[in-house]
Amino acid sequence: MTLRNPTLAIEIDRQKRLPIYLQICERFRTAIAAGHLRPGDRVPALRGLATQLNTARGTVELAYTILVDEGYLQMRGAAGTFVSPSLSESLKQAAPAGRQDAADAPGAEGAGAAKTPASPSGPPTTRQPAIAVALSGEPRPLQPGLPALDAFPRKIWSRLVSRRARGGERMLLAYPNPVGYLPLREHIATYLGLSRGVTCLPDQVFITSGYRATLELVLRSLASPGDRMWFEDPGYLLARSFLAETGVQLVPVPVDEEGIDVERGIERDPEARFAIVTPSHQSPLGNTLSLARRMALLAWAEAASRWIIEDDYDSEFRYLGRPLPALKSLDRHDRVLYCGTFSKVMFPGLRLAYTVVPERAVERVARVACSMNAGAPTLFQAALADFIEQGHFARHVKRMRTLYGQRRLLIAQALKQTFGEQLTVELPSGGIQFAVQFAEVAHGPIDDVAVASRARQVGLAVLPLSIWYAHGRMRDTPRGLVIGFANIADAYEAGRLARTLRACLDG
Amino acid sequence: MTLRNPTLAIEIDRQKRLPIYLQICERFRTAIAAGHLRPGDRVPALRGLATQLNTARGTVELAYTILVDEGYLQMRGAAGTFVSPSLSESLKQAAPAGRQDAADAPGAEGAGAAKTPASPSGPPTTRQPAIAVALSGEPRPLQPGLPALDAFPRKIWSRLVSRRARGGERMLLAYPNPVGYLPLREHIATYLGLSRGVTCLPDQVFITSGYRATLELVLRSLASPGDRMWFEDPGYLLARSFLAETGVQLVPVPVDEEGIDVERGIERDPEARFAIVTPSHQSPLGNTLSLARRMALLAWAEAASRWIIEDDYDSEFRYLGRPLPALKSLDRHDRVLYCGTFSKVMFPGLRLAYTVVPERAVERVARVACSMNAGAPTLFQAALADFIEQGHFARHVKRMRTLYGQRRLLIAQALKQTFGEQLTVELPSGGIQFAVQFAEVAHGPIDDVAVASRARQVGLAVLPLSIWYAHGRMRDTPRGLVIGFANIADAYEAGRLARTLRACLDG
Repeated sequence: MTLRNPTLAIEIDRQKRLPIYLQICERFRTAIAAGHLRPGDRVPALRGLATQLNTARGTVELAYTILVDEGYLQMRGAAGTFVSPSLSESLKQAAPAGRQDAADAPGAEGAGAAKTPASPSGPPTTRQPAIAVALSGEPRPLQPGLPALDAFPRKIWSRLVSRRARGGERMLLAYPNPVGYLPLREHIATYLGLSRGVTCLPDQVFITSGYRATLELVLRSLASPGDRMWFEDPGYLLARSFLAETGVQLVPVPVDEEGIDVERGIERDPEARFAIVTPSHQSPLGNTLSLARRMALLAWAEAASRWIIEDDYDSEFRYLGRPLPALKSLDRHDRVLYCGTFSKVMFPGLRLAYTVVPERAVERVARVACSMNAGAPTLFQAALADFIEQGHFARHVKRMRTLYGQRRLLIAQALKQTFGEQLTVELPSGGIQFAVQFAEVAHGPIDDVAVASRARQVGLAVLPLSIWYAHGRMRDTPRGLVIGFANIADAYEAGRLARTLRACLDG
Repeated sequence: MTLRNPTLAIEIDRQKRLPIYLQICERFRTAIAAGHLRPGDRVPALRGLATQLNTARGTVELAYTILVDEGYLQMRGAAGTFVSPSLSESLKQAAPAGRQDAADAPGAEGAGAAKTPASPSGPPTTRQPAIAVALSGEPRPLQPGLPALDAFPRKIWSRLVSRRARGGERMLLAYPNPVGYLPLREHIATYLGLSRGVTCLPDQVFITSGYRATLELVLRSLASPGDRMWFEDPGYLLARSFLAETGVQLVPVPVDEEGIDVERGIERDPEARFAIVTPSHQSPLGNTLSLARRMALLAWAEAASRWIIEDDYDSEFRYLGRPLPALKSLDRHDRVLYCGTFSKVMFPGLRLAYTVVPERAVERVARVACSMNAGAPTLFQAALADFIEQGHFARHVKRMRTLYGQRRLLIAQALKQTFGEQLTVELPSGGIQFAVQFAEVAHGPIDDVAVASRARQVGLAVLPLSIWYAHGRMRDTPRGLVIGFANIADAYEAGRLARTLRACLDG
């Protein structure tokens, strides 16, 4: 293995839509694919590259984290960071002969990466981004955000889908209504009134094909390029990347045990136009936004006609007392856009979510929805309306609340037993995933990205906690794992998974 | 009726993402909703407003066209353009009492519009954009792009959907694979090889939830903000608005009987990075891109690593000879992204489309697809794979080709009989919609937007031809209608619809 330290011409373009850390990733992948960086080469130190690019050290660190995660780089502590020695074989296998010159597309980020390993349709490999792998395709053990697929009443659901399909209404064949299927909107409005304290008309409910589609609809309707948005730090990983693509600027606002720190937000950027929050069950830390903070957040938004986006993704599952009412229920001045999803409470393959928008925004959002022409298939919306109407939905939520309440005990106990002092495990009070933190060890923080990466190689879909923080892995960023527990069948399985995970601690 | 000509403070903001013509629309709606413009008021002349705003006359004309179409304005030839006198009642009915001050959202385009008429979930009214109305919700007679819903084998389809739903595979419940369901990708690759001359691997096929989603995936993967794209003039209405939102700049390139005029495109913008074309069946004129033009287009793209987006939306239906091979089949240098959809050949409620990307772009597109996490429900993808595998798809296409071949005769004959010299009707050689042109009449061109608007009021979903042109309705822009004919049951119905349409000529 050589220890060359090649001069690397990394250039970034601040005009590009692509965030700088992703540009850095692309440059490295391209350089590696083109052979300018070879397996075993040492890459520039974080600080050095940050200075060279005139960017924050955290930005470079985030890029390196991703590249390590993807298998391109390897961190070796004080020795530095290196191109993975094991990369050469997979590169050779994947690059079609005679296509080394294919990276010719002008302005195309990472054209060279097209020659790097892995078929996207194949089984997960190191080439797919960790987040995408964690969320898509075959369900895997400990996958965050995945509800209990074994406990979903599949027979009832398939009977309703079949009945609707056989009914053969023409409506099911035509373009779906871009704002949603009216009976479903009505059921959602009723449900939210009863269970979340949200009073709204069906007209205010817009059906989308997932939370990302919700965000796109809302921001296309209400945001202008360059608008700034408070974003929880740590905050929902996928939302962060979605939002970065839309052109809004995220302003990280720290989260503590009371949820997002509104005062700190006001200090950092009182003039932001949006705040996006997870009040019921902070993603990923699991805290609940305190009443005082709720009132402060609403007051901030009311004073200057800002918008609050409330992501209420899994509030149905609460194991201590009753579910809290939504932030939206306190929204006297109509500043809150409430966002819900059926991915957790039904199943993610349904691809149905919704948002409740203030009356004054209904017309605008409807116009954007029509112009996007992005309705979800009516068949599923109709079957879901039936599912709710016939009481299956309420029964399912109730049953899952009990089941998940038990499964969270199984995983918490198993982790405590297996990891002992190494891991801080608090019993989750709600939701279907939770964050656990590694204890500090003598020789520095545990590399949670490496642990998650090894876990993925043995089939576990846990995510590293540190990458949920805005600035990636700074020295004092908490290290830990985000773990889904809804699919754990019994204590035996919980123990087995915990032991497998424990084995990933050692590289 | 007053004839005041109020000084109207229309301001546009060139920094905004919203195109200028839409900004003008918004300002008018707001002014009308706020009472600054009253029913019966004359609005500024096209030329005057264009000068005032320092924009093209065509831009203002496009805005006025849309506003007329929405029922806000009325054009009265030489007398000028007026706020619709009939607007007052609907405005009064729709504006909630005491909410006239609701337009307080900072930076929000058209906040005032939230107070204007019509519930978006209700039946189509003048407030919904014509295009959206024409494409969404209940199918209506003559709707462009809508396949024959009565002839779709609903029983077979619902049997396959039900069988899959009852099968209860866990995979159907989990997050769909963001790049698509592999067996469907395989079937598409095989089908394209056999029927379109497109040779590709399943890995190159990406499943999306519609053409708009395809464009988003492709452009997020390959385009940078400000990239310029050749766009057929006239060209597909919805693509134009989708693309405008993505930040690419459209360069209109004229279309003649050989399809897009590549030489003119090179004259106008040789350095564009993209061209988006409908080679098999130009949308909306129906021409086929000639072989010479195909070769010229490919040569242009090959020389400088540009991308061609081939929208092959309804090529399965060709009534003269065999379907032509796709442009992609001639693509020796892998510059063409081929786009297909199941909206026409199956049904639009399915929300499934696909794109075939060149090998060198596979990795990039896969990464973007994963980061968008926007997979389509697996149940439909699996049922469609079954439908293809069991031969239903091939049979259905064949049957529809015959059926549509007959139905196009019915509509062409009925229109000729009813309109006589007033309308130029050419028998469509392919597809499920066609454009017919009004003859010039003594007192100037026929107002096709007004005709389409009246037609919509009596339930017909035809679209005006002139708005498919980049600059809206210039003096010499062809006037006509875009008419779907796939759902015409018999000669009697064709005659009845033609007569209804004829009655819309007279305002």
